[in-house]
Amino acid sequence: MVNENQHTCSASSSSRSDGSSSGSESSKDSSRCSTPVLDAERHERLREKMRRRQDSGDKWFSLEFFPPRTAGGAVNLISRFDRMGVGGPLFIDVTWHPAGDPGSDKETSSMMIASTAVNYCGLETILHMTCCSQTKDEITGHLQKAKRLGLKNIMALRGDPADEEWQEEVEGFNYAVDLVKHIRNEFDDYFDICVAGYPKGHPEAKNYEADLRHLKEKVLAGADFIITQLFFRSETFLKFMKDCQTIGINCPIVPGIFPIQGYHSLRQLVRLSKLEVPQEIKDVIEPIKDNDAAIRNYGVELAVSMCRELLDSGMVHGLHFYTLNREVATTEVLKRLGMWKEDPRRPLPWAVSAHPKRRVEDVRPIFWASRPKSYIYRTQEWDDFPNGRWGNSSSPAFGELKDYYLFYLKSKSPREELLKMWGEELTSEESVFEVFTCYITGEPNKNGHRVTCMPWNDDPLATETNLLKEQLEKVNRRGILTINSQPNINGKPSTDPIVGWGPSGGYVFQKAYLEFFASSEIVTALRKVLKKYETRVNYHIVNVKGQNITNAPDLQPNAVTWGIFPGREIIQPTVVDPVSFLFWKDEAFALWIEQWAKLYEEESPSRMIIQYIHDNYYLVNLVDNDFPLENCLWQVVDDTFELLN
Amino acid sequence: MVNENQHTCSASSSSRSDGSSSGSESSKDSSRCSTPVLDAERHERLREKMRRRQDSGDKWFSLEFFPPRTAGGAVNLISRFDRMGVGGPLFIDVTWHPAGDPGSDKETSSMMIASTAVNYCGLETILHMTCCSQTKDEITGHLQKAKRLGLKNIMALRGDPADEEWQEEVEGFNYAVDLVKHIRNEFDDYFDICVAGYPKGHPEAKNYEADLRHLKEKVLAGADFIITQLFFRSETFLKFMKDCQTIGINCPIVPGIFPIQGYHSLRQLVRLSKLEVPQEIKDVIEPIKDNDAAIRNYGVELAVSMCRELLDSGMVHGLHFYTLNREVATTEVLKRLGMWKEDPRRPLPWAVSAHPKRRVEDVRPIFWASRPKSYIYRTQEWDDFPNGRWGNSSSPAFGELKDYYLFYLKSKSPREELLKMWGEELTSEESVFEVFTCYITGEPNKNGHRVTCMPWNDDPLATETNLLKEQLEKVNRRGILTINSQPNINGKPSTDPIVGWGPSGGYVFQKAYLEFFASSEIVTALRKVLKKYETRVNYHIVNVKGQNITNAPDLQPNAVTWGIFPGREIIQPTVVDPVSFLFWKDEAFALWIEQWAKLYEEESPSRMIIQYIHDNYYLVNLVDNDFPLENCLWQVVDDTFELLN
Repeated sequence: MVNENQHTCSASSSSRSDGSSSGSESSKDSSRCSTPVLDAERHERLREKMRRRQDSGDKWFSLEFFPPRTAGGAVNLISRFDRMGVGGPLFIDVTWHPAGDPGSDKETSSMMIASTAVNYCGLETILHMTCCSQTKDEITGHLQKAKRLGLKNIMALRGDPADEEWQEEVEGFNYAVDLVKHIRNEFDDYFDICVAGYPKGHPEAKNYEADLRHLKEKVLAGADFIITQLFFRSETFLKFMKDCQTIGINCPIVPGIFPIQGYHSLRQLVRLSKLEVPQEIKDVIEPIKDNDAAIRNYGVELAVSMCRELLDSGMVHGLHFYTLNREVATTEVLKRLGMWKEDPRRPLPWAVSAHPKRRVEDVRPIFWASRPKSYIYRTQEWDDFPNGRWGNSSSPAFGELKDYYLFYLKSKSPREELLKMWGEELTSEESVFEVFTCYITGEPNKNGHRVTCMPWNDDPLATETNLLKEQLEKVNRRGILTINSQPNINGKPSTDPIVGWGPSGGYVFQKAYLEFFASSEIVTALRKVLKKYETRVNYHIVNVKGQNITNAPDLQPNAVTWGIFPGREIIQPTVVDPVSFLFWKDEAFALWIEQWAKLYEEESPSRMIIQYIHDNYYLVNLVDNDFPLENCLWQVVDDTFELLN
Repeated sequence: MVNENQHTCSASSSSRSDGSSSGSESSKDSSRCSTPVLDAERHERLREKMRRRQDSGDKWFSLEFFPPRTAGGAVNLISRFDRMGVGGPLFIDVTWHPAGDPGSDKETSSMMIASTAVNYCGLETILHMTCCSQTKDEITGHLQKAKRLGLKNIMALRGDPADEEWQEEVEGFNYAVDLVKHIRNEFDDYFDICVAGYPKGHPEAKNYEADLRHLKEKVLAGADFIITQLFFRSETFLKFMKDCQTIGINCPIVPGIFPIQGYHSLRQLVRLSKLEVPQEIKDVIEPIKDNDAAIRNYGVELAVSMCRELLDSGMVHGLHFYTLNREVATTEVLKRLGMWKEDPRRPLPWAVSAHPKRRVEDVRPIFWASRPKSYIYRTQEWDDFPNGRWGNSSSPAFGELKDYYLFYLKSKSPREELLKMWGEELTSEESVFEVFTCYITGEPNKNGHRVTCMPWNDDPLATETNLLKEQLEKVNRRGILTINSQPNINGKPSTDPIVGWGPSGGYVFQKAYLEFFASSEIVTALRKVLKKYETRVNYHIVNVKGQNITNAPDLQPNAVTWGIFPGREIIQPTVVDPVSFLFWKDEAFALWIEQWAKLYEEESPSRMIIQYIHDNYYLVNLVDNDFPLENCLWQVVDDTFELLN
């Protein structure tokens, strides 16, 4: 009598059903999460997510990357994570390069790249780890560090021996199964463990059957799922999968897909993996081996048709892509398969982090809207994330942002590029106004360069901000230098493509927000005007020295984005918080100097202009509390200019 | 440069200003409340409230009551607290009658009446306490009990000696000042302490000057403010006040106002207080001494003109009324003075409790909307009130509601009255439908009696529910027996006279809610209909045995009332909580038996009809999540009836 959507709760005092608490005797025992669950997957471990997707028939994909060689490569790879994260991978994985100091704190290490993916890009991430030729202590150290950094998943591998003379060590880590056992011994069930499967058998295995038995040992030792080596024909994988099932391997087995992207990369991979390329593929490729585009097109075609066969078999629920750190081919395959999420549903209006302790994080100050990685960095030491509201008395301090060159906070643009955008030579405050205006309009500056980023915003204008473009242009031209804004919204569907977020069937709301730098002359006039708007408009006005003028009642946070959803409590993910504003102010003022002034010679006129603005301008934020009415903040600004004239 | 509405926060890392945290170094030290402050007074102690009112020039009043003699009198007095609480007293006080076992658990004791006023009526309350002829241990015991019950204020009095032979005891409690010292010694600053002042001097004092010196001793010993004995001329008080100031008494001094309400009560009071009635008053009263109405009118006139003189003096900020447990005269005086709040602003949509540990309570399940005292009773053992959301895993169990005859939960109507309303004799389930329908319409039943209360609701229909009257009538007539409902609201001003609450300048919202009993036949049809409304409508359907059918996602609470206010986080004071619903269900079903069935003889047909409904009907609640659209719950009910036909 109870349909799929229903829970049946027992009435008796202490019994439970379906794992949901009946709560009759004591809600103290309740298993409910204390924060509203918007996105169930956010609270699940990887193997649970896989199971949920398998049960719902919702096909998924994952992406493999290797660590970059250079710091610049790291910056680019992190941007790629952000872009490819949009398509909705279930996870990514980062390979382990024993030669590249993979467990170190270097910005190019496997450990750092994986940690950045989890913490700053919000991606579920598997860190590869090899055990061959390493001591138990070294391995335990790596695992402890991974755990500390928020990594939850390990791909346990043997790795290639350092030299050909390799021999089994007694009591040592000789095979991947030793690493799996070690992880389970030392870390119990903390990590989800993935192991490698070889559809054609491991090249060093005695034979295919012996290799299958090794695989079963790894699973029995505690592996949760299997990702396979690449293969060229769907039959290869499907046969392998059936053989696995026959000998009792019942965990998920994910096919590794390698879209051929070029002649040389294919040859290299084949050499490393000791695989044979089928003749029919060679026949196509050899004649076009110097035509990269043609090979890539062929590779995409081939991958798409193989993936279709795999998915159609009904045995495959997810696809794992060897991306070779490239975007185009994999993205194209996924789009053709209809698996790339064109319209990703945002669970919250800001990018969530995947660190386990941030799972319950559901509110942030609006100030870091364009610098989420900086916010995550500065709050990484928090033990406990504010539960339901931001900035209560138990929340700890913000970390210092001393190093503006942390690789995941670095500007993607080099100095020369920035100078072209922000001016080789500044002649007046007005030339700074012009830079802001060009960023807003998207039109080229007087030297013909488009301004695609600003010190406070590494990306072009958000779609939502575009809604305010016309007004923003007008005010920036006159010296209201905007760095953050949002329009008011009085109940749009949560599925709205621009401003929507959260589960469907809900309604989202916003109070209009405007944040800008302005001269003390403008601020003096503004403060007179604001008296007319008392209670309707809340403001904070602060200079670099920190005098903060505000009418925020009792210094409480003001919720500026919230959503109402079926069957849930209210979610208020963005607030204007008076306390954190003073931390943000330090960062916002410092960016003038660190990112902009330092482009110029010391004592140069350009540098002195930026320094003058830094020293004398105010940072202002305004909230229009009357969200159902027309946004009055433009009127506030107009009144201010009128008073000045 | 900083106006009155502004806080100036220092920028330096650790300094503070205005008592508000600047938060630069660590928000851990923040003095901000962790729950949004809607009503600052709710978080202040009495002496702070007095100071705030004095600073703002907002005149206040307070009301004195004495404990009742009988249990029936207690029920009536608590209702009076609720009615007079509407007028907005700053506090009430309850006198201490040594002869009446004042510190006991009897429902008529001073302690119980004061505790009920605080906990169940949400009134700031002062408990009087006398010390004469009591041991230190007895007094400490009373104070500890008062603290445990949530009382925060004590009026420290000597009290009258038991016999004329009274003599000072060495080391004993001889005067009020001894009690003040004892409270400060034993309870530090926990209690606010009030002491009595005598504008004409205490009758037993050597002289007026000696009495003033005693008063100063009481203040020096730790009293926070003074309430005076009654007096008949404003000059008496004003002279007293000046004399107090002259000798250095600087705490608030509140004049005690006694509106003359009758010849006999005046004579009695005068005798007890050993005061002399001025000749000009005697001259008026004597000729009309048998005309109660005329005396009361005169008393009101006299009190109003004396209060005006006091207020006009600029020295008086609050007035304390000796009510003699009567409503009319005091209310009339206050209304004429313009001090009775005709349109009280509700800080939250439900009646808050004044127990200190409930100060942060800002969310409750909707189920107890008409039985707030029962909710407070059943959660009185909670140590900590859910902070920002209801029903998280740390909230403890509900207490049992075993005794349906606790005096503050008792029906105000006697059995004969209830029988007239609910039927001397029930003949069928339809005759029960008729009772529900008459309660909704306000029309007399077939015996000519109006149904002004129900087992689930001791008061006539709420104004808000009246908005739904027409539909409610229709569905009750057909056996959808409604016990709770609210209309949907899509952003009405927080000052709306019917549905508004919270500070002005905000907007309030509701999801439509409907809760009712219905037969299993109706419920079977309803469940079919509800499939059409999946995700839009959340439901819980439960019978007395406790089978609970619901589509609540992950058993999360659903916020059904919320408010958006300038400069604040979102407040969501009412939720439909799946866990607490199972506790409410027990109470809701029990009320059929305890309040209704038990009116009839055992085995009587009337009692069996109610018992049948109790055993076989379901309790259903429905929420329409689409608050911006027209409420669909009536359509759900119509569809159900259509399916049944």
